[in-house]
Amino acid sequence: MRITLKDCAEIIGRYNSFLILTHASPDGDTLGSAFALKKALEKLGKTSQVVCNDEIPQKYSFLWEGTDNDEIKYEAIIAVDIADRNLLGEKFNGIYGDRVMLAIDHHLSHRDYAENTYVCDKAATAENIYGLINELGIEIDSGIATCIYCGMATDTGCFLFTNTTPDTHRIAAELMEKGADFAIVNKKMFETKTMSYLKLEQMALATVQTYFDGKCAIMHITQDMFRESNSNEGECDGIASLPRKIEGVQIGITVREKPNGAFKVSIRTVEPYDAAKICALFGGGGHNRAAGCEFICSLEDTKKALLKAVEAEII
Amino acid sequence: MRITLKDCAEIIGRYNSFLILTHASPDGDTLGSAFALKKALEKLGKTSQVVCNDEIPQKYSFLWEGTDNDEIKYEAIIAVDIADRNLLGEKFNGIYGDRVMLAIDHHLSHRDYAENTYVCDKAATAENIYGLINELGIEIDSGIATCIYCGMATDTGCFLFTNTTPDTHRIAAELMEKGADFAIVNKKMFETKTMSYLKLEQMALATVQTYFDGKCAIMHITQDMFRESNSNEGECDGIASLPRKIEGVQIGITVREKPNGAFKVSIRTVEPYDAAKICALFGGGGHNRAAGCEFICSLEDTKKALLKAVEAEII
Repeated sequence: MRITLKDCAEIIGRYNSFLILTHASPDGDTLGSAFALKKALEKLGKTSQVVCNDEIPQKYSFLWEGTDNDEIKYEAIIAVDIADRNLLGEKFNGIYGDRVMLAIDHHLSHRDYAENTYVCDKAATAENIYGLINELGIEIDSGIATCIYCGMATDTGCFLFTNTTPDTHRIAAELMEKGADFAIVNKKMFETKTMSYLKLEQMALATVQTYFDGKCAIMHITQDMFRESNSNEGECDGIASLPRKIEGVQIGITVREKPNGAFKVSIRTVEPYDAAKICALFGGGGHNRAAGCEFICSLEDTKKALLKAVEAEII
Repeated sequence: MRITLKDCAEIIGRYNSFLILTHASPDGDTLGSAFALKKALEKLGKTSQVVCNDEIPQKYSFLWEGTDNDEIKYEAIIAVDIADRNLLGEKFNGIYGDRVMLAIDHHLSHRDYAENTYVCDKAATAENIYGLINELGIEIDSGIATCIYCGMATDTGCFLFTNTTPDTHRIAAELMEKGADFAIVNKKMFETKTMSYLKLEQMALATVQTYFDGKCAIMHITQDMFRESNSNEGECDGIASLPRKIEGVQIGITVREKPNGAFKVSIRTVEPYDAAKICALFGGGGHNRAAGCEFICSLEDTKKALLKAVEAEII
């Protein structure tokens, strides 16, 4: 059932302990949203545990203090920034996929799986968590502010992407005044690259090919490249935006080989090209300017199928 | 004489036509400030011309419509974002350096050269221009908003750097509501890399070597690399910040060969390391976190000398 922010607050009021689910391959928005919510619930005297199907990369450790490993008992499950139960990850989907009491998300493509679903088209799920925390009447402290800022900065590329709104900026201003450590978030998220990531980026850039008068660029990353560079999926959040950054490119595509040999595709576009529409052709989804899908075939066939879809979109 | 924002507005009221000076090697803040002011003055029925010692790169053409080449007669000269008359460029310094009636700037290091000087420590000069336009009672339209946004985004690295304040975000929100075309600014300033630049970046990254337990990284760029990548100095604004972005690096050094064979050195540090102090040893200077100097010797000897200076600073 789709519900309002007020309903979310009411539902949270009913329980005292929560399990908070983040999506697989966790990023700054799912984690920032989850830890902001956890810290806010603490202020109401409620307990909660943030969990993830995958290991949480070390670079996010600034979002929480102490360990979060002690298993707690919980009365209800909340999922944050998870547009589809498949994104919980295989194991978590199996365990929790049909038991989520409340899903809070910002993806308009959200496919309902929870008993109650709140989706509002904000720049980040963290912006919805900000709204919820205000709805709950909880004072935002510096810890909560840092988490929300992290989510918003992550999903807007530090206020760069066109999903940024005047509200995003105004909330960022307020969070800074509440003590958000924006310097550490920005440094960790946008100003730190590992040598292994830089090597991978070099290898990936060497594969870039452009099509349709340079309007479309495709780049690929193989498991071999991960091995050779000593890099891993966890440090590649931003790599999908690289092809679109090339001068003249309006549809930028990144094809990443997964450990199981499937290909994960990320598409980034500029107006008027619709990334979600292209990905929907292959069973994927997302936003107008950023979407994803998956292929189980060869790299060559993946690219061929994508180029055919792009051609139809461009002409 | 140092003056207030109110004084600035009063001085502008006295004249009907202005020459607006921008600094040499113009960037988004000096140009955004200048064109915002020009557009605002037009709304008061005043004429003005924006000029620069150097050619204005094509990528800034979105800041103004039509040509700005017709020489106008002017009654007073305004300088924006120019901390020192030397930064006007050699020719302009000679012609205009001692004739500036009003300097508007945000550099606390400003060395007075104008008859009247307004310096306020904001993230960008454009933020001071925003204040002035409000002081003058001029309604901000979409054209003015785009110019101010461009200046603020440029100098904060799109709200990334620690000079960003809550005010910066709040003004950005207001400018978006006034119709600032933030998407084009962000795309042009932060999301566009030429293939030639990307090739150069790959070559440069391949030269990175780290020292002192990874605390210092040195990268070099030769004239051969410029030729091979088909890149040039003009598109390398941000490359000097790359070595410091490597995880763990606290002193990042970029050594660039100049056409005459000399080596231009850029040093970027994180606290507590003082880039200006290191560069001063070699006759250079700058800010605590970003400074430069020059060597006339071999690449090898340049690096040796730098590493010796870094060692003394690190230990």
